[in-house]
Amino acid sequence: MASVTNNTENVNTTAWEGFKGETWRHEVNTRDFIQENYTEYRGNDQFLEPIAESTDKLWAKLQELFEVEHEQNGVYDMDSNIPSTVTSHGPGYLNKEEEKIVGLQTDVPLKQAFQPFGGIKMANNALQSNGYEVDEDMNKIFTDWSKTHNQGVFDAYTPEMRRARSNKIITGLPDAYGRGRIIGDYRRIALYGIDYLIEHKQDDLANTGNRTMTDDVIRLREEVTEQLRALNDLKTMAASYGFDISHPAETAQEAIQWLYFGYLGAIKSQNGAAMSFGRVSAFLDIYIQRDLDKGLISEAQAQELIDQLVLKLRMVKFARTPEYNELFSGFPIWATLSLAGMGIDGRSLVTKNDFRLLHTLTNMGPAPEPNMTVLYSSHLPEGFRTFAAKMAKESSSIQFENDDLLRENWGSDDVAIACCVSATVTGKDMQFFGARANLCKAVLYAINGGIDEKTKKQVGPKYRPITGDSIDYDDFIEKYKDMLAWLAELYVNTLNVIHYMHDKYSYEAAQLALMDTDLKRTFATGIAGISHAADSVMAIKYGNVQVIRDEDGLAVDYAPQNEFPTYGNDNKEADDMANWIVEYFITQIKRQHTYRDSAPTTSLLTITSNVVYGKATGNTPDGRRAGKPLAPGANPSYQDGKYLGEKNGLLASLNSTARLNYENAMDGISNTQTINPTGLGKDEDTRIGNLRNVLDGYFDKGAYHINVNVFSNDLLLDAQENPEKYPNLTIRVSGYAVKFRDLTREQQNDVISRTAHDRM
Amino acid sequence: MASVTNNTENVNTTAWEGFKGETWRHEVNTRDFIQENYTEYRGNDQFLEPIAESTDKLWAKLQELFEVEHEQNGVYDMDSNIPSTVTSHGPGYLNKEEEKIVGLQTDVPLKQAFQPFGGIKMANNALQSNGYEVDEDMNKIFTDWSKTHNQGVFDAYTPEMRRARSNKIITGLPDAYGRGRIIGDYRRIALYGIDYLIEHKQDDLANTGNRTMTDDVIRLREEVTEQLRALNDLKTMAASYGFDISHPAETAQEAIQWLYFGYLGAIKSQNGAAMSFGRVSAFLDIYIQRDLDKGLISEAQAQELIDQLVLKLRMVKFARTPEYNELFSGFPIWATLSLAGMGIDGRSLVTKNDFRLLHTLTNMGPAPEPNMTVLYSSHLPEGFRTFAAKMAKESSSIQFENDDLLRENWGSDDVAIACCVSATVTGKDMQFFGARANLCKAVLYAINGGIDEKTKKQVGPKYRPITGDSIDYDDFIEKYKDMLAWLAELYVNTLNVIHYMHDKYSYEAAQLALMDTDLKRTFATGIAGISHAADSVMAIKYGNVQVIRDEDGLAVDYAPQNEFPTYGNDNKEADDMANWIVEYFITQIKRQHTYRDSAPTTSLLTITSNVVYGKATGNTPDGRRAGKPLAPGANPSYQDGKYLGEKNGLLASLNSTARLNYENAMDGISNTQTINPTGLGKDEDTRIGNLRNVLDGYFDKGAYHINVNVFSNDLLLDAQENPEKYPNLTIRVSGYAVKFRDLTREQQNDVISRTAHDRM
Repeated sequence: MASVTNNTENVNTTAWEGFKGETWRHEVNTRDFIQENYTEYRGNDQFLEPIAESTDKLWAKLQELFEVEHEQNGVYDMDSNIPSTVTSHGPGYLNKEEEKIVGLQTDVPLKQAFQPFGGIKMANNALQSNGYEVDEDMNKIFTDWSKTHNQGVFDAYTPEMRRARSNKIITGLPDAYGRGRIIGDYRRIALYGIDYLIEHKQDDLANTGNRTMTDDVIRLREEVTEQLRALNDLKTMAASYGFDISHPAETAQEAIQWLYFGYLGAIKSQNGAAMSFGRVSAFLDIYIQRDLDKGLISEAQAQELIDQLVLKLRMVKFARTPEYNELFSGFPIWATLSLAGMGIDGRSLVTKNDFRLLHTLTNMGPAPEPNMTVLYSSHLPEGFRTFAAKMAKESSSIQFENDDLLRENWGSDDVAIACCVSATVTGKDMQFFGARANLCKAVLYAINGGIDEKTKKQVGPKYRPITGDSIDYDDFIEKYKDMLAWLAELYVNTLNVIHYMHDKYSYEAAQLALMDTDLKRTFATGIAGISHAADSVMAIKYGNVQVIRDEDGLAVDYAPQNEFPTYGNDNKEADDMANWIVEYFITQIKRQHTYRDSAPTTSLLTITSNVVYGKATGNTPDGRRAGKPLAPGANPSYQDGKYLGEKNGLLASLNSTARLNYENAMDGISNTQTINPTGLGKDEDTRIGNLRNVLDGYFDKGAYHINVNVFSNDLLLDAQENPEKYPNLTIRVSGYAVKFRDLTREQQNDVISRTAHDRM
Repeated sequence: MASVTNNTENVNTTAWEGFKGETWRHEVNTRDFIQENYTEYRGNDQFLEPIAESTDKLWAKLQELFEVEHEQNGVYDMDSNIPSTVTSHGPGYLNKEEEKIVGLQTDVPLKQAFQPFGGIKMANNALQSNGYEVDEDMNKIFTDWSKTHNQGVFDAYTPEMRRARSNKIITGLPDAYGRGRIIGDYRRIALYGIDYLIEHKQDDLANTGNRTMTDDVIRLREEVTEQLRALNDLKTMAASYGFDISHPAETAQEAIQWLYFGYLGAIKSQNGAAMSFGRVSAFLDIYIQRDLDKGLISEAQAQELIDQLVLKLRMVKFARTPEYNELFSGFPIWATLSLAGMGIDGRSLVTKNDFRLLHTLTNMGPAPEPNMTVLYSSHLPEGFRTFAAKMAKESSSIQFENDDLLRENWGSDDVAIACCVSATVTGKDMQFFGARANLCKAVLYAINGGIDEKTKKQVGPKYRPITGDSIDYDDFIEKYKDMLAWLAELYVNTLNVIHYMHDKYSYEAAQLALMDTDLKRTFATGIAGISHAADSVMAIKYGNVQVIRDEDGLAVDYAPQNEFPTYGNDNKEADDMANWIVEYFITQIKRQHTYRDSAPTTSLLTITSNVVYGKATGNTPDGRRAGKPLAPGANPSYQDGKYLGEKNGLLASLNSTARLNYENAMDGISNTQTINPTGLGKDEDTRIGNLRNVLDGYFDKGAYHINVNVFSNDLLLDAQENPEKYPNLTIRVSGYAVKFRDLTREQQNDVISRTAHDRM
């Protein structure tokens, strides 16, 4: 929504001293500010400084707290009777004297907040399962008087939705927890100060609706008023730490602090499925460079500020339930930090700050958070590509996304990644997160006429099953299409309920206050089990699959009689089968009515839930055994077996993944790979160079994403047996980085069982 | 929504023993049950029994409590920290041994509940203004964590809406208190028991929406689930009094008790603008007659049950603010009880119970509540018409509505009146109550180009004002039409916001649970100041109105130079002017988008707010002085003055009111009249007969409503000076009956200033 006030700069001009450009001064436009002011850096990592003494002390103290937390199964402490809001807690510190950047979620480091608005049952479950008592007053308040998102959703669900959910054909739905995935443009606070943002939101409110009060206009007007309330709350919260963020930041330290306060408001008020941090690197570099140029700070001090910001992001904690931890173990919160990327004007957006941010993995060692995400292109300066490859190799904590695809498909060079692979244009897009449907299980539903192979319940529609001893491909395909069409409709409508209720009972005012009022909303569905689905269809087409039935005639196992091509081995037909399934499914998704007319997308992403999803899925025609994990995300199957697995090496596998069509899965395609260091070459420089070349080639072929791990399985086996030796061993799993010791044993086994490529 | 379960009688058949008919057994249909089973009564009042000893004791005790309450300015006691819900309070009694019908709003008689869901500010204001302390915990809960209706509304209001509201061109909006006006079909509990109703609502839930989850389907599904929760809560509440209402009532006493529990659930969970009781007379008579026929009870016991039900309705109290009391003084709650009426089959619906219910005014004396409302027709049996006229004359506590118009326009003989004059088909319609727009003030806005004559603020659109010394009729009419069109649009959109938020934050689950899921909703706007608006336009047309201006040129007074016809004197042109204004306004209303596609209606009703509205309205072209009360409802002006007043007697006044077109004001047309007993004839019988004849003639002419008062102004003057002599003097004011001593002095003066007709 364009501003209709006719303001010239109404902000403290010393804050903007030395900044260039005009457009961003007259409207809220952080991208324009960045484009006008950032200094591209094409050099190497030689300028980087080691950890400051202050940061070292803080990090040492935090490590101690982490040990306590680890011994207490991931919970240092928990609140039970202060519903967390932007202003619910007084200021908290780790070590006030040493902190250059301040602000905690609660008043005590690592203490997990009580966040009942998404669902009181889940908040209580988190308390009880961690040995804390439920507060009866709070339980009464959020049961009898203040309804929660979770209750609203289940009030509106149909029996069919409950069945699909409990039988796990649709899984991981954000109906008992916050949907997350929304990234506030936290930079706005630093550049404009809260008062200017309030003025612009008031302007938006005045121009919301043409006077006719339809439901959508009323809803938006209420939301913008809630956003205004949240902006004032952010000021109050910052003031409790002694800062006045009503005006713009004047220094790099203030810019980082202001921006972090914005994020802090978000995580105080929401326990979302992913609370991502956004794209702040070039933005903050502008402030740092100005202070460096003025001689106000040294490079060492710049690194100190960045290290301390990152340290804060490493401290973010949310109360979680055992069920949640089983799906996504290791307590990820997806404080995804998007780095680098190219500008649409041809310059790269790489600044020294991208180096500084990755350098935190050296200064403080590898860590799961923030979720370091490099927006990669072979057009990025070589110095940075080399450094990124080096840090990925050394830390196994970095993911890469194809920045060329992002710019092409989102029309912006200010895209940030939410969670793992979800693109949103910063401050302009929000996502309705929708977890995923199990398309591998849908293969079995197509065969069994909608009866679940595990629970024997009629879950899908009562279509005619396949009854013979073998499966006719043409017959199957028609049945699979019918079942996918049913699943897409049910799935979208389930999500419609969820997002209606989330807006109603758990609206993210603090985050949306820092975004445009006139938002583009995506409706993010997701697909689980794509590789097994594709391989199963290939098996049915070419493998002469014989059906094994139980006493009731239900198909419960499958025996392919012939070899068949599988996805992940650079076989075009198998890879195209995966593409066809995705395209057919997203086409059915797009036919549906979506909440707030949001734009449907889908993802190939399971994060670590592939283990739980696999447990709920019977034997599949591709030869995968019942209960075994699905391959995560868009990964090719890595199961042992006669037919499955990446048999042709890393590059063939990457070629297959690169063949997947991003246009059909605009919410992202996740691929996780491990390569044995020896597979990359003999010495360090060769290995770094080869990894960089692999990334260049992979992304130039149009692949969307990769999690890079460089280690041998021997290391993991040793870490599994001797966890005390590897307290900080961090690896990339599907969707995030995690401390290996924090994975469940089942998930550790899954990771170990994956192919660690010994050859390219 | 028709039932799709295929149940035959699944209820205790002894409860239905002796009842006739089939349809009502297979679907929730209380009207059909009544039609099949009621016994019309065409006799007189000779069968009636005096007050029972038990009731006498209860009434005596209640009188004592009323005195305490009166001494404490209408507040016996107040809760401050128990948000009132259906199940929030344990059982309470007045005198348990004597109570045949039990159930209190809180645990103590007359104690006012704490009802924050409509708005915490209003709930706190009610506490503070009555000398109670605000509970800080409750304030925090309902400010920080649980949003209220009031907050939601003001979050979405536009500045224009706030201006229109604070300048009182739109007035009395239910944006800080409950909208009320919804009448649950409380009979359903008695006839079916809660379990059967739950089963049917579950059936409705299963058939809500065609799987596509649009916002309206999601909303309705959540609402029905809330209704199911409320039905279970009603069972819990009844059980606390020792009754199991899961099954149908088996006796008259149970039927009355079950039905009252339904109403009790409503008033425990809502502090609405009018909490009407509905149409229960013939329904309960069926149960009473069955028990009488079986010899289970005597007529004296039947009267005892009815008296005690009515006694309970006299005890209903809500926490109120001074601002509310100023608008509607005397603490009305509009427990409107609709009596008599004709059936569409030609039989009257009069039963002995209509006599019993009116007879409570004798047994316990006149009282404001329940709001006794006779659905009148000259086709009703003469015995009842005579008795109703007699009771009206003796109590001045009865209102009459035209049942012929109701049946014709609402297509049902099961219409009940909500509040004063608002028709709803029982269990099938609900109303979105919308207070009123001041069309008399709109005359002044048309003249002054949208500038308010009292506040001098630009409130309406900046249309060209009338600038000359006199007012050209044609010029004025165009300007008035423009202003009415603006007002209608703004008014409807304001109400759209209110009802969206009421559904969101203060949904009436306990009432709507006892109504059809597939409801017809009316969107009830209202008009204040119709007679002054019509007379002002007549003055402009015929009176050569000279304009007197203030120093800024704003028109502030008007001097008609000639006589002009006025509304209320049986002048067709003046009366038609009133009709034209209403028709033009409702036409503009009907052009608008209305919330949930509800059907727009309007009313001519001000209740006692005519005094406050008049205060906010400047001098008007008809000669009315600034600040003087508007004539209430559709009443002709009764102001002294050269031009105004009913100059041609009662019948001429009634003829004018009868000329108003109900089709354009389907939310009702209110008329309040007082006649000096001597004007009705010399002796009692003549007076009763004449009053009955007046009613017959008035309604046969198509008039909609009348409040009947029979007394002289001397009585009121004496009561004003010596209130202790008249503790129970009850009169009909516009919209309700009230104890005269509970009116503000200003309102007493207004009542006294009205024409008490000495001649027909």
